[in-house]
Amino acid sequence: MSLEHIRTPHPELDAHYCGPLLEIESHIICQHRQIESWFRSQWLQHPAPFYASVDLRNAGFKLAPVDTNLFPAGFNNLNHIFDPLMVQAIQAAVEHACPEARDVLIIPERHTRNQFYLESLAALVDFVELAGFGVRIGSLDPIDEPLHFDLPSGRQLTQHPICRVGRRIEVDGFSPCTILLNNDLSGGRIPILDDLEQTVIPPAELGWWNRSKSDHFTIYQKLVTELCEVIDLDPWLLTPLMRDCGQIDFLKREGEACLEQQVRELLAEIQEKYDTHGIREKPFVVIKADSGTYGMGVMTAQSAEEVTQLNRKQRTRMQASKEGLGIKRVLIQEGVHSFEKVSIDQSAEKFVAEPVIYMVDHFVVGGFYRVHTKKGINESLNSPGASFVPLPFNEACSLPTPSASPDSERNRLYVYGVVARLALLAAAYEHQMIQAKTPQAPTDAPAKREVVA
Amino acid sequence: MSLEHIRTPHPELDAHYCGPLLEIESHIICQHRQIESWFRSQWLQHPAPFYASVDLRNAGFKLAPVDTNLFPAGFNNLNHIFDPLMVQAIQAAVEHACPEARDVLIIPERHTRNQFYLESLAALVDFVELAGFGVRIGSLDPIDEPLHFDLPSGRQLTQHPICRVGRRIEVDGFSPCTILLNNDLSGGRIPILDDLEQTVIPPAELGWWNRSKSDHFTIYQKLVTELCEVIDLDPWLLTPLMRDCGQIDFLKREGEACLEQQVRELLAEIQEKYDTHGIREKPFVVIKADSGTYGMGVMTAQSAEEVTQLNRKQRTRMQASKEGLGIKRVLIQEGVHSFEKVSIDQSAEKFVAEPVIYMVDHFVVGGFYRVHTKKGINESLNSPGASFVPLPFNEACSLPTPSASPDSERNRLYVYGVVARLALLAAAYEHQMIQAKTPQAPTDAPAKREVVA
Repeated sequence: MSLEHIRTPHPELDAHYCGPLLEIESHIICQHRQIESWFRSQWLQHPAPFYASVDLRNAGFKLAPVDTNLFPAGFNNLNHIFDPLMVQAIQAAVEHACPEARDVLIIPERHTRNQFYLESLAALVDFVELAGFGVRIGSLDPIDEPLHFDLPSGRQLTQHPICRVGRRIEVDGFSPCTILLNNDLSGGRIPILDDLEQTVIPPAELGWWNRSKSDHFTIYQKLVTELCEVIDLDPWLLTPLMRDCGQIDFLKREGEACLEQQVRELLAEIQEKYDTHGIREKPFVVIKADSGTYGMGVMTAQSAEEVTQLNRKQRTRMQASKEGLGIKRVLIQEGVHSFEKVSIDQSAEKFVAEPVIYMVDHFVVGGFYRVHTKKGINESLNSPGASFVPLPFNEACSLPTPSASPDSERNRLYVYGVVARLALLAAAYEHQMIQAKTPQAPTDAPAKREVVA
Repeated sequence: MSLEHIRTPHPELDAHYCGPLLEIESHIICQHRQIESWFRSQWLQHPAPFYASVDLRNAGFKLAPVDTNLFPAGFNNLNHIFDPLMVQAIQAAVEHACPEARDVLIIPERHTRNQFYLESLAALVDFVELAGFGVRIGSLDPIDEPLHFDLPSGRQLTQHPICRVGRRIEVDGFSPCTILLNNDLSGGRIPILDDLEQTVIPPAELGWWNRSKSDHFTIYQKLVTELCEVIDLDPWLLTPLMRDCGQIDFLKREGEACLEQQVRELLAEIQEKYDTHGIREKPFVVIKADSGTYGMGVMTAQSAEEVTQLNRKQRTRMQASKEGLGIKRVLIQEGVHSFEKVSIDQSAEKFVAEPVIYMVDHFVVGGFYRVHTKKGINESLNSPGASFVPLPFNEACSLPTPSASPDSERNRLYVYGVVARLALLAAAYEHQMIQAKTPQAPTDAPAKREVVA
């Protein structure tokens, strides 16, 4: 390990709200055995998805997840000190999903030459190789020849054309029993992935085409309520309030009255909570596409009027999302301030940051801070210009230290790991609900050889 | 993490034999995917014991395990940087052994006030608690009251009287479904552990009363031969040659002629191997109790005469072993020189060292160097006066780096992890053989309440 990890700046929490956070943290740390025991019984019934990253916001007076990505990128931003944890968890996860696997074919995002994504993909390949699997990357793009990338990190990457042979996807004769999907399928199902005899992890049914944030957070709320009964904590401290309101078309201004109404009601509900807890911040809501990610189609509002007074450009921006699909449903979520600040590049100045926690199987394996130099405490940081600071903690999130201060690095991260795993567990429930809805795939299919290109 | 880990001295290998070792290491690292794949298929058929520590000897020209302990101590000597790995592996291991477990009762060694052992026990308790389980320690000693220990590390430990209630062992109403045994049962079966409805991990059948080193190393040899066929390596490079020769009584000088003959033959066989590989060291053998541990009942010999010329004191020492049981069988094993040296306490002087690798489930979770300032390259270091230096490596043994030198820290440790896991796998086979031999326990037993005291 190099010294750089030790010099990584310690994040700073606004002193104002340290008190309430300490209460949440110390409560969770004291109850860690009950919490772990609860999680264990949950994982037995609801196996965790293969991997996930969860964006958290730490307002001091509350700590909540705001996004759960089941096809995470950002693997290149993790602290190398956690590599062995990641590798051990990947081994355990593949054993659960496909015990006989020797090789893994990774299917990444399409149409991307985004260097950050490709660096993440290269890091993911490294992790899976270190776990002892042969790995190749198969491209969903119509390419005839392998595509080579030389990345800024010095890593190299090759994406291969894939072909479908019967109920399998192959890359030039490489036809492993396991396909690792790193494509969130925001654009919808991809026929070549349908009805495969290979094990696809996570299954394509967990793509954004088939998930909704309102379902996810509805389940999350129920789970938090259940756990909070066990450990006697107010669930609001870990949950963003939310509303959803059917179809919406920002450009045609359809559904606007409902949206305005819901925003008004949610703001009032948050204000009430703030009053109860003596919080003097101004409530805000986040309006976001109910499916999809990449920080697109997101706006914040401190009043209902802001929603109706959007100009044309803002409306267009809200209507757009990844892969060009229009937004049809939005989720209105209680905005959670971020009172955590982190410095970049050893400078003294600190910027608003939000932790992103990574999990493989049901294990917390690392994370980083997403930092934005141009954003305030009540804005989404998941937008162009964000930087990434590996978690400065030199120990993993999996270990509470009841004897240390609740605010110690180790304990802070343990608490983040608990909240992130609650979101992961919500995704595990989602998965089972989706499985229950999905009709059984037919067992035979034409063995026609079909090249994607 | 403190800076102390970074200052931990780098071990040094005698330059003489670096060449051959580099060959072994680079071979193993190049083949790491085949090796991991082979291990995966093995673990599917032969689940790993709960935990183990394996003593290795690195002679440069060969690298081999010399002892496999299935009830390890020494948890206090591990590098804290590996704590998260240990905790994650314990979670996975308990999930395999007893998915519903909430609490764990640890049964440690008897009659011990040995501070080193108690420190190890306290460290083990910490790990299991961090993994999210409630833990208590139940003593097999006839005590009436809880026994408190204040340890030099500042840790505290309490051992409780246990009682048998029907087919369960309880500590003052604490009656978890899982009992973690940290007692190697060198002294034989312990009736209170018989026929329990609780899950005992590892099972008492894996105690030294029921294992033999000759069985272990016979299986080990077969497994190494199998893996070495896959990766095209001479199995001798990873295996100590061995002989065993029935009953022996050092004091009565019974079985001596056989022993002398076997030692002579084994030395000649080693010499032949040395000649083939151009090794100019003097061969030696290690004669050790076929069951048991703690470095008792061990001697080395460079000639057959040394065995017959033992004086009375030496004979008595060889006849003794842990818990006062006489030695009945011995294993004669090829001595593996240790050409690794490590310094203690930042001093420049370096001493002979042997790596001890720890595993939980089938995961490598850490290790340390056993160092002895008074012992030579061909002597057992597992004897009074040994010191322990946490593995100076700042990354775990689980990750090879094919792009780095085979002699890099990470790769050296990966190779140690492969050899240690081969010994662990041999123990998994032993377990299955023992299970096959063990008659089914009766399903009912008197519900008489019986206090050990």
